[in-house]
Amino acid sequence: MPNPTAAMLVIGDEILSGRTQDTNTNHLAIKLTEAGIDLREIRVVGDGASEIVAAVNALRTRFDYVFTSGGIGPTHDDITADCIAEAFGVSISVRADARAILATNYKNPDVDLNEARLRMARIPDGADLIDNPISKAPGFRLSNVHVMAGVPPVFHAMLESVLPTLTGGEPLQSITVRIEAPEGEIAETLSNMAKATPSLSFGSYPFIQNGIFGSNIVVRGTDVEKLAAAREELLALAKTLKA
Amino acid sequence: MPNPTAAMLVIGDEILSGRTQDTNTNHLAIKLTEAGIDLREIRVVGDGASEIVAAVNALRTRFDYVFTSGGIGPTHDDITADCIAEAFGVSISVRADARAILATNYKNPDVDLNEARLRMARIPDGADLIDNPISKAPGFRLSNVHVMAGVPPVFHAMLESVLPTLTGGEPLQSITVRIEAPEGEIAETLSNMAKATPSLSFGSYPFIQNGIFGSNIVVRGTDVEKLAAAREELLALAKTLKA
Repeated sequence: MPNPTAAMLVIGDEILSGRTQDTNTNHLAIKLTEAGIDLREIRVVGDGASEIVAAVNALRTRFDYVFTSGGIGPTHDDITADCIAEAFGVSISVRADARAILATNYKNPDVDLNEARLRMARIPDGADLIDNPISKAPGFRLSNVHVMAGVPPVFHAMLESVLPTLTGGEPLQSITVRIEAPEGEIAETLSNMAKATPSLSFGSYPFIQNGIFGSNIVVRGTDVEKLAAAREELLALAKTLKA
Repeated sequence: MPNPTAAMLVIGDEILSGRTQDTNTNHLAIKLTEAGIDLREIRVVGDGASEIVAAVNALRTRFDYVFTSGGIGPTHDDITADCIAEAFGVSISVRADARAILATNYKNPDVDLNEARLRMARIPDGADLIDNPISKAPGFRLSNVHVMAGVPPVFHAMLESVLPTLTGGEPLQSITVRIEAPEGEIAETLSNMAKATPSLSFGSYPFIQNGIFGSNIVVRGTDVEKLAAAREELLALAKTLKA
């Protein structure tokens, strides 16, 4: 059976303007690869309702799991929860369980849990809450869509509580061999190896370092013996080219 | 007139597996913001032809400019040029001008310009070449789609030669004020400011640093005086909350 598939949707003008470098996606990608879930697509859209709704609907119908980051705080530009409700065509309102969790943050919740903060207790109907041990305000899961915060430590913490609930596949293993020769020197051998072992995927990731043109060859697959054989073959190739 | 819009398409399994953190997009985002071009969407897809073709066609019809990175090297997994040709429904072949540029890399081009390297001279019909001062193999522009390398120094260099060819708009200016108070404390004021000055956009980007919950408020717009006024108002707010 093929591994489950996933997509990530990053929501936030600050990524698109270049102000912030997104790192949540890389963290998610590493965790999903370990869990045997194939991250197939990443999208980043701004804080506009129509873009968010369209992206959620495009991704949730094509992939087994969707993860989102950003836009679930208390300010006017935090519209993710409402957009998820719209995408699924369900209602959204302040929910008692989410409100109770938020209230634990404050000495005087009746005063401190102001209108803005109560936005963070707005949860689409039918969703399960995702625990937020850092700043309390929960994320949520609706069907296959997992809605999480954009602040990296909170995203990481929420993901930790989500991961055990996902059905993973066979973890993809990989080996990497660094070859200090231009890709053009090794392309034919690599193409032949890829053809000879279709159960493995061969990727070539060129680099330029201290004036040296080289490439990291990454081979991925679930068959550990075949991966080891590919590694030996590539190490031999690297030696030949260096000699 | 509104600013021109843009999308970025990152092509490469290595981003999706988490092996590589994409940084080209952040670089592009900063450069486009300076040029008055609004980056509206980012997508990352793997090295599969159908995904690449679908993404190119989805983005090139919706945005003024599309930029791609990755998949234009000499190895079997470099299929971007062929996918661009397919997306536009045009032919692709080894082109004399691209071949001549590649040949300058080698002492004996007749020998060294092997079949794999010649893949890098495959250019879709009707495309203009994009200069690559680092490793010669050119990128290309077909209609509104700019196809560039994934290796960051090459992507940066190609972008430098592309930027002067783009029509920019009014450069978006921004001011940032750091407020060391939870978002929930400032959300109402911020929402009122946003309503009072619709020509500016107000974003709130929360952080957690040394146990302090705070937020960077970023205001964007083209009216420098209004931005300065917003900055003063936010600085006064920050002072009140700290006192």
